[in-house]
Amino acid sequence: MRIGCIGTGKMGGPIAGNLARAGHDVIIFQRRDHSTPPAAPSASRTRNLRDLAPCEVVLTCLPLPRDVETVMTGPKGLLASMAPGSIYIDMSTIDPGTSHRLEAAALRQEIEFLQCTLGKTPDHAAKAQEPMFIGGSKACFERLAALWPVMGSPVHYLGTVDAACAIKLVSNMIGMANLVVLCEGLQVLHKAGLDMEKAIELLQDTGARSFQLDVRGPWIAAEDDRSRFGLDLALKDVRLGCEMADSWSMDIPTMKTVLNMFQEASAAGHGDKDCCGVRHIIT
Amino acid sequence: MRIGCIGTGKMGGPIAGNLARAGHDVIIFQRRDHSTPPAAPSASRTRNLRDLAPCEVVLTCLPLPRDVETVMTGPKGLLASMAPGSIYIDMSTIDPGTSHRLEAAALRQEIEFLQCTLGKTPDHAAKAQEPMFIGGSKACFERLAALWPVMGSPVHYLGTVDAACAIKLVSNMIGMANLVVLCEGLQVLHKAGLDMEKAIELLQDTGARSFQLDVRGPWIAAEDDRSRFGLDLALKDVRLGCEMADSWSMDIPTMKTVLNMFQEASAAGHGDKDCCGVRHIIT
Repeated sequence: MRIGCIGTGKMGGPIAGNLARAGHDVIIFQRRDHSTPPAAPSASRTRNLRDLAPCEVVLTCLPLPRDVETVMTGPKGLLASMAPGSIYIDMSTIDPGTSHRLEAAALRQEIEFLQCTLGKTPDHAAKAQEPMFIGGSKACFERLAALWPVMGSPVHYLGTVDAACAIKLVSNMIGMANLVVLCEGLQVLHKAGLDMEKAIELLQDTGARSFQLDVRGPWIAAEDDRSRFGLDLALKDVRLGCEMADSWSMDIPTMKTVLNMFQEASAAGHGDKDCCGVRHIIT
Repeated sequence: MRIGCIGTGKMGGPIAGNLARAGHDVIIFQRRDHSTPPAAPSASRTRNLRDLAPCEVVLTCLPLPRDVETVMTGPKGLLASMAPGSIYIDMSTIDPGTSHRLEAAALRQEIEFLQCTLGKTPDHAAKAQEPMFIGGSKACFERLAALWPVMGSPVHYLGTVDAACAIKLVSNMIGMANLVVLCEGLQVLHKAGLDMEKAIELLQDTGARSFQLDVRGPWIAAEDDRSRFGLDLALKDVRLGCEMADSWSMDIPTMKTVLNMFQEASAAGHGDKDCCGVRHIIT
């Protein structure tokens, strides 16, 4: 199958690599003069977006909703030159509003659209063990039955693009909120005179246990701020999640406080650190 | 050893039972006309607080800081009639301020004081598998080396009473905050059209995973509000945790938002439900 890949960074890169290794004819749109990502050495590359027009499937995996719209539905966007019957899949972490606009623009040209959000880390993507949450036409989802397991697993078809966007934004929002309350709690324990490593060990044996405690607790204890999931990306996801709730007239006060914390941390210059750098504003 | 037990409810009851079964001479102060708790059938009982005065060790395990002060340091409090050289251990979830006052009152009478907070559930207490976090005189802690494993395990000596209070309040605060953000997230997913059971299964495979998701997620999906850890008790712990942070001039905005959520839920009549009943105010 001829597959176009736009956005081959930490997540999109390994997925393009999985497709190329499986024998698909992968063509990567490369905006800037990157060296060849090791994940997809056998894929072809182009700096001309229109070279992706003949692809049966086009994937986008980009940082921001506006990046996706620019490249697909903007004045020089790819969608206008894709063939009817082809399939466009967005794998970015975007809001349902943007996803609906992409879906509508695709359908107007008889192009199928699927939103496919990704559950875990680049390491999981590289091993084709990335959980995938898919929304959009069920018939189209089923047409690609053979393709999904090549890209990741487990594969979850959730129905609407709303559901596919929401599960990703909400899982990131919950994770980042768990991180912020962990940082607040650890600062209090530090003030109480507890050693951070000991505090993390003790908390793991209580109802405070979480993925964030297990994974980021040791980094916090070691004062290790190297970015695995950057604070500004976390801020973006929590912002999109809160805006999604707002657009559905929902009130989620704790998430909004968490959003304020990340905004304050970013404004204080911690945006390039790992998201656990949010602790620096808690005093 | 002659051991007096005050407060033999969900946590204190099983611990008194462990001590009695190990052959200690346990005497329980029973404020109201309770039937004999099955946890400590061999213990003796009294409605006269002064009957506990000859005990070498007195334990309190009560709901509120003021309950502890009333029974120990109030006008008719037990502490005044205990012998110099005896030991008083509080096992309640209380604030460092109250713990310091108890410690000072005990030391004035040459009674040793230890704060010992408890990490897990009544089921763990019944099996002597309750994690114990202890602060106060190290010499006194060591004098009781043989007694701790009878009551629970693992046994952690943390130094000050501040540390013993803080680890408990902070672990409960983090756990309850993780619960509130989980409830907010699940409400958003419900609005997005996801089935709650499916949503919880999907979240468990992401960075949103937590003890609260694993334990309370299924209760939330089943709309099961039976109280395992009551909302008003959760509110009390979060309030004490926030007051502790305030007293140390710390700013923990997310925990304060969580406190507001529990206060609102209690005011709306959900105080007797399980703490996961906080979700009823999220709309």
